[in-house]
Amino acid sequence: MIIEVLNTLGIVAFSVSGALKGEKHKLDIFGIVVLGVITAVGGGIIRDVVLNQVPDSIIQERDAYLAVFIAIVSYIVYHDKLEGKLSNIIKVSDAAGLAAFTVIGAQKGLGNDLGLLGVSIMATLTGVGGGVLRDMLVNEIPFILKEDVYAFLCLIGGGVYWGGIKLGFSEALMMNTVMISIFIIRIMAIMFNLQLPSKGRLKHADS
Amino acid sequence: MIIEVLNTLGIVAFSVSGALKGEKHKLDIFGIVVLGVITAVGGGIIRDVVLNQVPDSIIQERDAYLAVFIAIVSYIVYHDKLEGKLSNIIKVSDAAGLAAFTVIGAQKGLGNDLGLLGVSIMATLTGVGGGVLRDMLVNEIPFILKEDVYAFLCLIGGGVYWGGIKLGFSEALMMNTVMISIFIIRIMAIMFNLQLPSKGRLKHADS
Amino acid sequence: MIIEVLNTLGIVAFSVSGALKGEKHKLDIFGIVVLGVITAVGGGIIRDVVLNQVPDSIIQERDAYLAVFIAIVSYIVYHDKLEGKLSNIIKVSDAAGLAAFTVIGAQKGLGNDLGLLGVSIMATLTGVGGGVLRDMLVNEIPFILKEDVYAFLCLIGGGVYWGGIKLGFSEALMMNTVMISIFIIRIMAIMFNLQLPSKGRLKHADS
Repeated sequence: MIIEVLNTLGIVAFSVSGALKGEKHKLDIFGIVVLGVITAVGGGIIRDVVLNQVPDSIIQERDAYLAVFIAIVSYIVYHDKLEGKLSNIIKVSDAAGLAAFTVIGAQKGLGNDLGLLGVSIMATLTGVGGGVLRDMLVNEIPFILKEDVYAFLCLIGGGVYWGGIKLGFSEALMMNTVMISIFIIRIMAIMFNLQLPSKGRLKHADS
Repeated sequence: MIIEVLNTLGIVAFSVSGALKGEKHKLDIFGIVVLGVITAVGGGIIRDVVLNQVPDSIIQERDAYLAVFIAIVSYIVYHDKLEGKLSNIIKVSDAAGLAAFTVIGAQKGLGNDLGLLGVSIMATLTGVGGGVLRDMLVNEIPFILKEDVYAFLCLIGGGVYWGGIKLGFSEALMMNTVMISIFIIRIMAIMFNLQLPSKGRLKHADS
Repeated sequence: MIIEVLNTLGIVAFSVSGALKGEKHKLDIFGIVVLGVITAVGGGIIRDVVLNQVPDSIIQERDAYLAVFIAIVSYIVYHDKLEGKLSNIIKVSDAAGLAAFTVIGAQKGLGNDLGLLGVSIMATLTGVGGGVLRDMLVNEIPFILKEDVYAFLCLIGGGVYWGGIKLGFSEALMMNTVMISIFIIRIMAIMFNLQLPSKGRLKHADS
């Protein structure tokens, strides 16, 4: 199923991003693995904790093991040159993960009878929560507060998913539509360097 | 009801404080809205998560929508001059929010059969949790660790509320007494610059 | 019972470590008490929240009161010279706490039917969660990401506990074996300055 594939790509990409952040801050192997795992499964854990459920990734451990493995591989093979060569693969995987995580979060929110804002927040927590934890742990201001198109896609994606289901469209249709849209928009945002408006650059507003 | 009014004032004031913090760190509009919402409803979310309940503000979305709206307004109308002019209104609203949030947290704690310390902690989490999350997200040491009268009021307010109920006073009486006391003491603390003792200024101890 | 003694030593040592961190950052008495309590009981709270239970330390308040008391005492008696004199006592108590907290976390994980990785994560959250919160609050990169043998002991300890129980050994045996092993290894790690491998010092790898 497409969501399984994208989710797996996302776990891999998020774990790599955590490991690379750990390398940047010169952490030891244990710190790097911790950052990798937290980045990969932290968003889902925050979402489940807020929804008052024992986190999926603690019970069904496959994703967490995968994240550990990928972080260790990242640690072993890491060198600056490789990072440059792989950077496009990482970005595409990251966009895949964002798309899958957003839809998974929105589904969880709907399954708990949340409204529009609640579903959007669950989608966003799932999509960006891991990255926020990662940045807070290494004492950086979380990227979503700076590079906002990222979280904005989760929020809108969650809202569109909620709206589609409420309008009677099938779950499979909404899932694939939202996932593919987020993936494509995210890739285009990277290629064309799109950003939300901020003071002084209000002209190319996209919201 | 008075608690509704104070709670709404608090949501507004806390959202504004989050948005202003975002402006200070030059965040984009999305980051500013995120900070505003987290400051306004984050304390209640932490409290509900610790108490093992799905957060009120995720289910009943009124407060979260209000916080989003206020943060957007703050972003649009913000300029340095205005901040100075509105600073007293913001401070009074903030004190109202602190008073309402503390009592709401204490009520939740009592409703879960917590003891003195548990109720005081729930009151404090509700009152200052949002501000702590806000400061951690922008990489500042949380203000309550520095400007301590603020959290101290929550802690004592929660304890007094617990004691009053245990002594048989009515909920309405304790609610209004604690709320009004916190509000007045907070305003006076700002006017007269009261602080808890720290090394080297032990003379004006107030605990 | 030995676990009670070690747990109490741990609460004391963790509260002292939080209070000392507060002194270092020149916090007021309230901030110091907050840091002391969070360091002492924060790990258990994170664990219980993830496991979807109301935290022990909120309901049964003994540990939290003890942590408040110890933090206040630390604040009153603190001066640089004393810290040096007590440093060995603090380190031994800290190792005792790490050992007790790890086993308590592993027991909780097993009681919730978690697998190997889940039990190890619960052990680690309990052992190091409080220290991570402490460091995040004062804006330092958490020590476990830097000084990794510490968290590594929790992780392995949790895994060994899980394995022993699954192999049919008694709870009492596993509890004491894991606790005493962690305590001794931690003390030796301090005495001989053991570390996990990081780039450039891969020779004395111990994983």
